[in-house]
Amino acid sequence: MFSKKNNVSNSTESELIGLITQWLGTLNPATPEGIGDDCAVFQPAGDIHQIMTTDTLVYGRHFDNSISAEQAGGKLVNRNLSDIAAMGGLPDRAVLNLLFGADLELAWLEGFVKGLRKAGAGVNLKIVGGDICRLNPGLFISILTVLGTAPSPLTRGTAQIGDAIYVTGELGGSLRQKHATFAPRLAEGEWLAESGRCTASMDLSDGLAKDLSGILAKEQSAEINLHSIPVAHDAHLAAEQSGRSALEHAFCDGEDYELLFTIQSNVSEADFKMLWTQAFPQRRISCIGRVVESSGRAPVINTADGTAPRFTRGFEHFSGS
Amino acid sequence: MFSKKNNVSNSTESELIGLITQWLGTLNPATPEGIGDDCAVFQPAGDIHQIMTTDTLVYGRHFDNSISAEQAGGKLVNRNLSDIAAMGGLPDRAVLNLLFGADLELAWLEGFVKGLRKAGAGVNLKIVGGDICRLNPGLFISILTVLGTAPSPLTRGTAQIGDAIYVTGELGGSLRQKHATFAPRLAEGEWLAESGRCTASMDLSDGLAKDLSGILAKEQSAEINLHSIPVAHDAHLAAEQSGRSALEHAFCDGEDYELLFTIQSNVSEADFKMLWTQAFPQRRISCIGRVVESSGRAPVINTADGTAPRFTRGFEHFSGS
Repeated sequence: MFSKKNNVSNSTESELIGLITQWLGTLNPATPEGIGDDCAVFQPAGDIHQIMTTDTLVYGRHFDNSISAEQAGGKLVNRNLSDIAAMGGLPDRAVLNLLFGADLELAWLEGFVKGLRKAGAGVNLKIVGGDICRLNPGLFISILTVLGTAPSPLTRGTAQIGDAIYVTGELGGSLRQKHATFAPRLAEGEWLAESGRCTASMDLSDGLAKDLSGILAKEQSAEINLHSIPVAHDAHLAAEQSGRSALEHAFCDGEDYELLFTIQSNVSEADFKMLWTQAFPQRRISCIGRVVESSGRAPVINTADGTAPRFTRGFEHFSGS
Repeated sequence: MFSKKNNVSNSTESELIGLITQWLGTLNPATPEGIGDDCAVFQPAGDIHQIMTTDTLVYGRHFDNSISAEQAGGKLVNRNLSDIAAMGGLPDRAVLNLLFGADLELAWLEGFVKGLRKAGAGVNLKIVGGDICRLNPGLFISILTVLGTAPSPLTRGTAQIGDAIYVTGELGGSLRQKHATFAPRLAEGEWLAESGRCTASMDLSDGLAKDLSGILAKEQSAEINLHSIPVAHDAHLAAEQSGRSALEHAFCDGEDYELLFTIQSNVSEADFKMLWTQAFPQRRISCIGRVVESSGRAPVINTADGTAPRFTRGFEHFSGS
């Protein structure tokens, strides 16, 4: 079962998901109902679209002792809500899986659950069931699976050539603080879905450099003006420590939990920003580029020189961090 | 976060679930919508009842190398389907969480996923999404969360005094083989829900001795004729090795995945068994007792002497096996 060779470490995460999807065969319906978007989408009856998503929070991997139990609980809820936001949906019901060693402090568990409550209460989330399971000492794993509704679900891979690419907020350096304290962009996602102008959407969790490929259809590339990427203050602070540029942090760091979306090409940037600012005066919005035909080029192209940005994440092997 | 004292090992699993439910506060609706039944039940719109359940399968805890990868995958699906069956429901869509070390053999993972496919294909289950996550070497954790429908959901705690208590199949010794190869009682659960005679239902996963309390309402006890409990052949084989009686194995062993349910008191055992046998000629059914007023007595009472059966599981602490 476990071995030093012929194991999963030779495959990237996306390759593994591809293999699992293939092995599942007919059990996996086509996207967006099946595997491959932020949420699965389906219609249980009549006009209702339901959406469903699941996310994991593992001690030592997605958080450590630098954040509080309440923050860890909030992060689990908000990671899921960010996927719901990306579809333009609203959360509804969830089930919770907790797996932990017998040495987990009861007070820590209480803080974690109260963090779930605080994050869920504001958006009317109901936790309707779950499962707890014992693991070896020192381990803590939590999983939340959320069911929601989306009147007009926003999906990936549905943009047209020429559509403008936008991001909310500011990017990079999230691990300094934001990863534990961010607010999922639910209102923004709902507004985009209602606007009728948004052609594709996803949330930024793996970093813009990687996630841009995720929003595109197969024959598309993203032409990006690197200098239009909104750089967070924490990306500058991270750059001081890492020796890399703040822009590289904004482009490549993960866990931004902002929305990445596309807007129809016939809507001017000025018009869209005016509407946006009326709705969300406090939330920065940036047009960072356009969807273009790939014609065999890299998925992400820098408009300055027409080539792939020189800093991009390397191959992300499943054995990597 | 982890400590040798004031940790979760001082609480039983049910105590922990009670605490988590309390800490969740208003995030947890009342049963059967909320925590406490085999599945959560809710009506998304109109007449449809949706049900939702989640179950965990951990290497070294719920299975070991004595079963194949395909059997492990099948067990994960069937554990969930057994909860769906207990509600008289039908499975529909599911999301899958896989967490494993980078040393997991790719061929084993393929076998596991193909085991999921085989178990899900027969009941038209669709796996519409999920999440994969890296853990330390040697670890494998899988979770499936299933959404289904139930026209008339069967619940726990809804039996009346005098109702007859039944179990399907034969009990005990499941760890010898059945835990990895059982078939969830979906058709039986659906038939019971349609019969209009079934007043409460659950699946047997922790053993009859413990699960009987789970089907009762607060003021109820179960008066059981111990000698009417159907003893599996594997319970006899287990008894030869353990030195305990086969009846004790049938009463106390877990992982039977049979249905435990109650039938209205005005339906005679002979009439019910006749109807059952017409529907399921191959599936044994046993009337093992009646729901009685507790009046401060033990939750489970042996009809032979009016006291609690002398063999019952001890306190199941979260630190225990």
